[in-house]
Amino acid sequence: MAFTFQINNDIKFKYNQDLLNKANQYRPTINYHSVNATSLGNLNKSTNSLGGYNIKKVADISELPKHSFTQDEKVILDFGDHYVGRFSMNIKKLGSPMDAPVFLKFKFAEMPVELAEDSANYRGWLSKSWIQEEYIHLDTLPTRLELPRRYSFRYLEITILGISSKWQVVFENPVVTTESSADLSKVSVPKLADSEITKIYAVGLKTLEGCMQDVFEDGPKRDQRLWLGDLRLQALANYATFKNTDLVKRCLYLFAAMPSSNGWLPADVFTKPTEIPDDTFLFDYSLFFVSILADFEKFSHEKVILNDLYDVAKKQINIALKQVSKQGELKLNDTYPVFVDWSNEFDKTTAGQAIMIYTLKQFIALARLVKDPETRFYKARLASLEEFTKQHLFDEKIGLFVSGNEREINVASQAWMVLAHVFNDQENQKLMQNTVHQLFPIKNIATPYMYHHVTQALFEANLTDEAVKLMKSYWGKMVQLGADTFWEAFNPEKPEYSPYGSSLLTSYCHAWSCTPVYLIEKYLLKNN
Amino acid sequence: MAFTFQINNDIKFKYNQDLLNKANQYRPTINYHSVNATSLGNLNKSTNSLGGYNIKKVADISELPKHSFTQDEKVILDFGDHYVGRFSMNIKKLGSPMDAPVFLKFKFAEMPVELAEDSANYRGWLSKSWIQEEYIHLDTLPTRLELPRRYSFRYLEITILGISSKWQVVFENPVVTTESSADLSKVSVPKLADSEITKIYAVGLKTLEGCMQDVFEDGPKRDQRLWLGDLRLQALANYATFKNTDLVKRCLYLFAAMPSSNGWLPADVFTKPTEIPDDTFLFDYSLFFVSILADFEKFSHEKVILNDLYDVAKKQINIALKQVSKQGELKLNDTYPVFVDWSNEFDKTTAGQAIMIYTLKQFIALARLVKDPETRFYKARLASLEEFTKQHLFDEKIGLFVSGNEREINVASQAWMVLAHVFNDQENQKLMQNTVHQLFPIKNIATPYMYHHVTQALFEANLTDEAVKLMKSYWGKMVQLGADTFWEAFNPEKPEYSPYGSSLLTSYCHAWSCTPVYLIEKYLLKNN
Repeated sequence: MAFTFQINNDIKFKYNQDLLNKANQYRPTINYHSVNATSLGNLNKSTNSLGGYNIKKVADISELPKHSFTQDEKVILDFGDHYVGRFSMNIKKLGSPMDAPVFLKFKFAEMPVELAEDSANYRGWLSKSWIQEEYIHLDTLPTRLELPRRYSFRYLEITILGISSKWQVVFENPVVTTESSADLSKVSVPKLADSEITKIYAVGLKTLEGCMQDVFEDGPKRDQRLWLGDLRLQALANYATFKNTDLVKRCLYLFAAMPSSNGWLPADVFTKPTEIPDDTFLFDYSLFFVSILADFEKFSHEKVILNDLYDVAKKQINIALKQVSKQGELKLNDTYPVFVDWSNEFDKTTAGQAIMIYTLKQFIALARLVKDPETRFYKARLASLEEFTKQHLFDEKIGLFVSGNEREINVASQAWMVLAHVFNDQENQKLMQNTVHQLFPIKNIATPYMYHHVTQALFEANLTDEAVKLMKSYWGKMVQLGADTFWEAFNPEKPEYSPYGSSLLTSYCHAWSCTPVYLIEKYLLKNN
Repeated sequence: MAFTFQINNDIKFKYNQDLLNKANQYRPTINYHSVNATSLGNLNKSTNSLGGYNIKKVADISELPKHSFTQDEKVILDFGDHYVGRFSMNIKKLGSPMDAPVFLKFKFAEMPVELAEDSANYRGWLSKSWIQEEYIHLDTLPTRLELPRRYSFRYLEITILGISSKWQVVFENPVVTTESSADLSKVSVPKLADSEITKIYAVGLKTLEGCMQDVFEDGPKRDQRLWLGDLRLQALANYATFKNTDLVKRCLYLFAAMPSSNGWLPADVFTKPTEIPDDTFLFDYSLFFVSILADFEKFSHEKVILNDLYDVAKKQINIALKQVSKQGELKLNDTYPVFVDWSNEFDKTTAGQAIMIYTLKQFIALARLVKDPETRFYKARLASLEEFTKQHLFDEKIGLFVSGNEREINVASQAWMVLAHVFNDQENQKLMQNTVHQLFPIKNIATPYMYHHVTQALFEANLTDEAVKLMKSYWGKMVQLGADTFWEAFNPEKPEYSPYGSSLLTSYCHAWSCTPVYLIEKYLLKNN
């Protein structure tokens, strides 16, 4: 996430200290590993790489200490894969005594294209402060430089911005101390016959690992925080891989502990310097609290969590249902917008209606588990939602759902209606066949988040070949363009597209893109 | 100092651990004081200020926490006077939760003109790394920012380079924790009738205080190290003011402990990360070790130091005398150059000859004290040096000393010959009268170091009014142009001149400029 802009300074929050304490009981252990840089590289034009650049190896890392650097010289270190962690390196001098400080610039990059862009040219709306560049003066050498901040990167470009002409600097033993609450030893990586799918799985796993920190972060390079809608996908991917249920519990408690005074859950929360709810609210993100709780229950069967959090989930459903008419029609509201996707170029009414149904069904399953006497009421609301959907939102002639007053046909409506299982399996398959024929290739969608839902809808509609084809053409295409981890945004029509106008701000390891590990596990392993 | 460029990588040094240990026994106590910023200012064009800029007060510092800063905003803090120390400040945020780091630039300036220059434009030969700018990312607010490096400054410009548009930053309680081994409580500031001289004394005292650190530094902003020739003037100024004799002892031992294998003392030494002699050697600077020891003995009468260091002083004289012919003529040598002044636009032969005589006379006084049986030998060498000087270097007709094969007449030769007392007092007075008439106003000299020697020569020649006039027209002019401390370089003909082509690199608190405190004490107080 990170493409929604709300300021709601006046919102008051009701902190629940008991739930906050539980969130902190599940604070994860962070695992640290030291990884050495592997080679020295040059930035190289390459038409088959993202933005037209890759890094060409010019020497093994063992050559690094043999070179001494003078004014304006640069070196690019390649760590061989994407890592999240802290950087350290020995720096010494060669030549006359050190008669001045040395002034160094460090530019950390997830993708080579970032090294081709000058941060001075960035004029986007998102804060420049996210750019992973540091300017460091060192007064005495030799030293072990230990940069205190965490970075998300594979490449590091070091530039000598200021040095005396009487001596040179030498770099030795560059190391990233990686950080993650994911434990790779818990993962049994599936053996897959298809090498492309194998690669997609591996990159997805690396993506999720990088985003698993003190909470599930949306991206370790940028935003670095816990979003509710993203958490839903991260938790599912986590059940398929690392199986760190404590981290999911922590995140569920964090959201539950900090609703607004009217009961809305914030779309995202911060955990540093302390737990703080963001003043951003999204209709569907709030509802996904129900999903995450239901998915968690299904995976772990831990009733304590359900008992603690059922009321919060129910509150989200109740708030959302206020926007649903007696006839079963969801009315969208600008002050509590539905997200569905970054793009605001399509009508979201029907997708929102589907998400309401999707989460209400999950809620009813939970209500049954806790034997909520009001379960019948929710079933009745569900029935009217589904009834309205079938009667008013489906165009029989075209065989697709329509959305909004203009009866717009878009891919999001179809995908979410399939996921909500408003129709039976046969109808769903027909619907997705129509979607493929009439709406593919997908236009104007740049998020793996939306591509995930379309791909999953194909799987749910039992169109496995089409699902795999879409996965390969989307996530597989990122791999072809050089992805070590999956990106926050990718539009196959315009691979160089960044939502912020600069690769320097784009997160190239973004949690909501990791879902192939979940889809592969759920649909390609279990079913085969 | 800092305008000489030598690389002598092949030189070997003979460390004397015993003397190094003694140097470290005299390591000074550093005094710390907290000083708050006093006001907020704007950079303002002003024809009567250095480089055409001053800082105009716009608000009391109490206004600072009332303002919140957004993208690209700047603020200039004025600390009311020049300080050397570490900066700290509280930073908090106002508005929505902190959804991004904040990226700040800190530019520390001794003089307002530095704030008018963009460091990106600096292309000089001296390392950019000296520019007092830092770029800092802060991931969590509120925080107490404590910058780890020491700065020399009065002004601090803070720029918001990157911030989210959802919140703003607020700055509170900016403090410099000053550092100096000088103790102001030891100084009895003289009551002077002349307000201009009073001001010059105060600025000189502040300059020396800023340069007294773990050693006598040449400048706390730039170079930050101990130079032998500069130490001579700092020690004299210190005897007149702070009277910290331990710091002089430390510095004497440091030089004595690290001669080259052929006995030369380095022109400067480093003390971080450990004691390191620079690979730079200057004929006159080595000889000034003798001066410093003689001046110290005269001030303190501590015989232990003399006994420990006499041999090192004698070695310097012996090495130097090898360059003196039997007839008493000093032959300059490019591999062991004489400094005299930064300018290389004048012939230094006669000034070098005078420095040889000046230091040899001081050495003979020490030789008598230690009852060196070879004293007679040195007296004979002195006699021939003086004889040669009078016979060959003085132009009777013009009434001035000449220098080099071209018989060049320059101010350095006259000043140093007066300081060396080659002539009697009456002749010296005549010589300096001729100098004033024929060579004033001084041309093409930009160092307070050279101006010091000319001013002192006027005092020694009993031309007190001329000396005071020169002091006011030089140091007084710096005060008029806004000096809180005296500058490393100042050419009254071209006030904006920087030896490095940029005010950003110029040291505006430089030890060799502090000598008015010495001259005032020696010639205006004792004689009156």
